[in-house]
Amino acid sequence: MRIGDVVQSADWKTEKHVPVIECPDQVKADEMFEVKVSLGKEVAHPNTTEHHIKWIHVFYKPDDGKFAYQVASVEFSAHGASTEGADKGPVYTHHGATLTMKIKQSGTIFAASYCNIHGLWENSKAIKVG
Amino acid sequence: MRIGDVVQSADWKTEKHVPVIECPDQVKADEMFEVKVSLGKEVAHPNTTEHHIKWIHVFYKPDDGKFAYQVASVEFSAHGASTEGADKGPVYTHHGATLTMKIKQSGTIFAASYCNIHGLWENSKAIKVG
Amino acid sequence: MRIGDVVQSADWKTEKHVPVIECPDQVKADEMFEVKVSLGKEVAHPNTTEHHIKWIHVFYKPDDGKFAYQVASVEFSAHGASTEGADKGPVYTHHGATLTMKIKQSGTIFAASYCNIHGLWENSKAIKVG
Amino acid sequence: MRIGDVVQSADWKTEKHVPVIECPDQVKADEMFEVKVSLGKEVAHPNTTEHHIKWIHVFYKPDDGKFAYQVASVEFSAHGASTEGADKGPVYTHHGATLTMKIKQSGTIFAASYCNIHGLWENSKAIKVG
Repeated sequence: MRIGDVVQSADWKTEKHVPVIECPDQVKADEMFEVKVSLGKEVAHPNTTEHHIKWIHVFYKPDDGKFAYQVASVEFSAHGASTEGADKGPVYTHHGATLTMKIKQSGTIFAASYCNIHGLWENSKAIKVG
Repeated sequence: MRIGDVVQSADWKTEKHVPVIECPDQVKADEMFEVKVSLGKEVAHPNTTEHHIKWIHVFYKPDDGKFAYQVASVEFSAHGASTEGADKGPVYTHHGATLTMKIKQSGTIFAASYCNIHGLWENSKAIKVG
Repeated sequence: MRIGDVVQSADWKTEKHVPVIECPDQVKADEMFEVKVSLGKEVAHPNTTEHHIKWIHVFYKPDDGKFAYQVASVEFSAHGASTEGADKGPVYTHHGATLTMKIKQSGTIFAASYCNIHGLWENSKAIKVG
Repeated sequence: MRIGDVVQSADWKTEKHVPVIECPDQVKADEMFEVKVSLGKEVAHPNTTEHHIKWIHVFYKPDDGKFAYQVASVEFSAHGASTEGADKGPVYTHHGATLTMKIKQSGTIFAASYCNIHGLWENSKAIKVG
């Protein structure tokens, strides 16, 4: 069995678990640009002690390269846990983040997300340098 | 020896390693707000295979609470490494991110950052609910 | 493009990047057992500032379940970086760890590993409860 | 307010949150040795969806050096969450791991641990090279 077999995918406009990648379609080589990764842009995902998104991991593979590079990992750590019980705590982290990166070549940006009860999900977006 | 003894602090306007926390001074209870954490707002920090910022961790402690909560961890993973050698790679991640969170009570937001050769650094910012 | 397309696999006895999963073939339900995950059991992988293994992530999917669960993530953080230059530092972390876990049902354990210049690799092992 | 103010410490023999560091008191320079970090060696800590240990981070500071180095981070990710509700899931990760590392100089090993409702805790152990 391969990991690819358990990373689920779907249309993010209808499936709330799929990470959305927002960045320019085209960027300049070696110039920083922003990438927003998040869940729930159209369909909100719960954020409770028992059910929440734990992280989004971002990778990049240049078109001319064989290997994927890890760009960033964002852990969303606070989900209302507290000594008074589930969802009584004073802080919640939303499942989205804006990162900044630069690339030299056209390639693909991948986002993988993890829901603590519905497992692994993914999305990708082509990005051109020119 | 305590961990607090090896987490360094300074004025971020003159010391490039200190994480900067940008968020409102006052927020409404249970309403999401953005927190930007980054290094090098005034003095740029290098981003090379040999010398870079690996992560920023964000915590929050309510004024009326005894314990700190982890809000998020952001790992900046790409620093130009490649099969052709150091700083020949196609991707770099900048050491900054914008997160979204909500709180119920006034407290303190902490950011801890880690430079792969200059160790641990920290900053904090008071935030009011009302 | 799917993430599964960029996670590489091979025989760990000849390919040094493939994570090795060592645990019993059969365990008792709800009883803790050890899982050792590592690289380089037969063919050593370099551990230098410019070329090293950054992490191993461990997942588990029950045979009767639809979703994979994250079991653990181990980050190997020290690779000789220092203010004196690459590979002059005082500490190195080896790319292996022993974890402890318990399961209720037969399933598959997955390990994913990441080399900072050769990308993502994977392995899996079936485990029976009975 | 400093991060050191919210990282709690105590005797691990009576306080279940304090990470225990098990490794030789003395090692040889540049020779790999094992370090076991865990909680609950004497007093067990709960491991439930609502209350559990999320991670242990390991650092090392050489006696002659100014900066601490991150050695490893171990995330304990599975705590019984599932689509059927809290503590109905098929997998739990225990809060302990054995790592392997090597050092060049005498120094201090630090472990920081995080409980999702009781916050940050720490311990340290001197280690001699010779």
